[in-house]
Amino acid sequence: MATEKPYVIGLDLGGTNSVFGIVDANAKVVEIGKIKTGAYETFEEWLDASIACLKPMIERVGGIEKIKAMGAGAPNGNFYNGTIEFAPNLKWAKGVVPFAKAFEEKLGIPCFLSNDANCAALGEMKYGAARGMKNFIVITLGTGVGSGIVVNGEMVYGCDGFAGELGHVIAERDGRPCGCGFKGCLETYCSATGVARTAREILANTDEPSLLREKDPAQIESLDVSIAAGKGDKVAKEIFEFTGNMLGRTMADFTKFSSPEAYIFFGGLTKAGDLIMDPIKKAYEENCMPIFKGKAKIMVSELPDADAAVLGASALAW
Amino acid sequence: MATEKPYVIGLDLGGTNSVFGIVDANAKVVEIGKIKTGAYETFEEWLDASIACLKPMIERVGGIEKIKAMGAGAPNGNFYNGTIEFAPNLKWAKGVVPFAKAFEEKLGIPCFLSNDANCAALGEMKYGAARGMKNFIVITLGTGVGSGIVVNGEMVYGCDGFAGELGHVIAERDGRPCGCGFKGCLETYCSATGVARTAREILANTDEPSLLREKDPAQIESLDVSIAAGKGDKVAKEIFEFTGNMLGRTMADFTKFSSPEAYIFFGGLTKAGDLIMDPIKKAYEENCMPIFKGKAKIMVSELPDADAAVLGASALAW
Repeated sequence: MATEKPYVIGLDLGGTNSVFGIVDANAKVVEIGKIKTGAYETFEEWLDASIACLKPMIERVGGIEKIKAMGAGAPNGNFYNGTIEFAPNLKWAKGVVPFAKAFEEKLGIPCFLSNDANCAALGEMKYGAARGMKNFIVITLGTGVGSGIVVNGEMVYGCDGFAGELGHVIAERDGRPCGCGFKGCLETYCSATGVARTAREILANTDEPSLLREKDPAQIESLDVSIAAGKGDKVAKEIFEFTGNMLGRTMADFTKFSSPEAYIFFGGLTKAGDLIMDPIKKAYEENCMPIFKGKAKIMVSELPDADAAVLGASALAW
Repeated sequence: MATEKPYVIGLDLGGTNSVFGIVDANAKVVEIGKIKTGAYETFEEWLDASIACLKPMIERVGGIEKIKAMGAGAPNGNFYNGTIEFAPNLKWAKGVVPFAKAFEEKLGIPCFLSNDANCAALGEMKYGAARGMKNFIVITLGTGVGSGIVVNGEMVYGCDGFAGELGHVIAERDGRPCGCGFKGCLETYCSATGVARTAREILANTDEPSLLREKDPAQIESLDVSIAAGKGDKVAKEIFEFTGNMLGRTMADFTKFSSPEAYIFFGGLTKAGDLIMDPIKKAYEENCMPIFKGKAKIMVSELPDADAAVLGASALAW
């Protein structure tokens, strides 16, 4: 029997683009559309443009009656009150924006909001590598390090909606300064920018020949490290081993908290494949307490790259 | 209207005593009885003695028909399969003991099992400081450091029943050796034995006069430190400040995981009152990310000391 409302709307709200998708229960994105996030001065202007983008998409699937709800993933999106709060990358969200309420009023369907990493976790649970799992952790390795934690089949939002900030767990006491004001956060080592920082440190501290020396150190990006490591570059491999060790040993502490069935990685750095995943797995197992050894699967997201963020956001709506 | 089955059985199974209580929904222990845990060579002998102890207690409350279920807190108790597994302190549980199943067969009521710290958390949620809370963490400061974590109103058991090992989170990388085989676990600093160890270290490394010097260093216990600190002893206060700092800064990382509404402390070390709680609170707030500052309450258990463990175990049965 066909369900009456077969679709949800997913919105991946980033600093550059706002991407809307209409998605069915089989993870098929049947309609897609986007607007420029930064082309609007106020939330109201951005909202009007969003509705203008969505209207024809909604008509093409048979009208709003076919749509169950909307889910959105946004920086500093708070699940509990549906607001975006003090998002540094969104010029129209420097204060508190009543995001979910505004869409509910315009569209007449429920709207749910969360941050990007939580949406990624929901996406994996609904459509991806975590289908059927009740306890797992998604770690996003991008410009920063984000996390979405699922316990007993439910998202962990905590008392205030801000739980799951594993990128700021202290990986090295008194280590690298972090944007959050503390030192040694996981994200200062294991984000794309952290990897580039490690590259500059290792290049400056050794004379080891490396393909990475062909570039101005200030311009090195994590992708350069991946390419060099793929060509067998020794320094590049050392950079990934250092990164994997920092991440793996810190994950061994996360396991003492929620003993997840799996860790699922998502984001640009995972493109390095085994070059980064093998050192993570090795360090994780070495640092696991005996009762946890060999239990948690360490995997890469199974969601299709282009649609992953929209799918994640749409999972919030089911 | 009186409920048909107004009671549950709670069992606090320790290395020395096995304490049985019959408890009502208002946390009143209406019957209590105990046997010596170590007086029996096999699980079957211990089980027979337990049933012999329970039988008259059950008769006095009106028979087994009045009892809803049994809950037990035991070292290495696994909630998922109801077994006690490889418990070093129980001579009849060196292997895998089918604990819950055995009581279900003998008594004809459901029996649930978990470890001591998880029972403490359930006890706080049912009868104590965590009533009405959906997200909190109980930390037990005893011979070791244990933890029971509640997220979205449910106990966190993880994929294998062993989640909540916060006593073994690394508080200091490459720090003090721990019984678990790793170095720098929280428990090596913040358990009663960890406090005694800190006392010996500080006394050996300074010439500061202290009441603690009146005792053979090998004999110093955390209670001696409490008494000395209560008398204004400077070294004893320094010991608690060091302990509180280790605990508070590590808790700031736990908050990044589940953002709890409260931390509730339980166990012998909490008897030191503000002498230990003030340094914990100070270090916690100093190490909290701005979004989490000032949110989590830091409290001491409200359960009556004598009955706390039995109440905690009984909470598992409701």
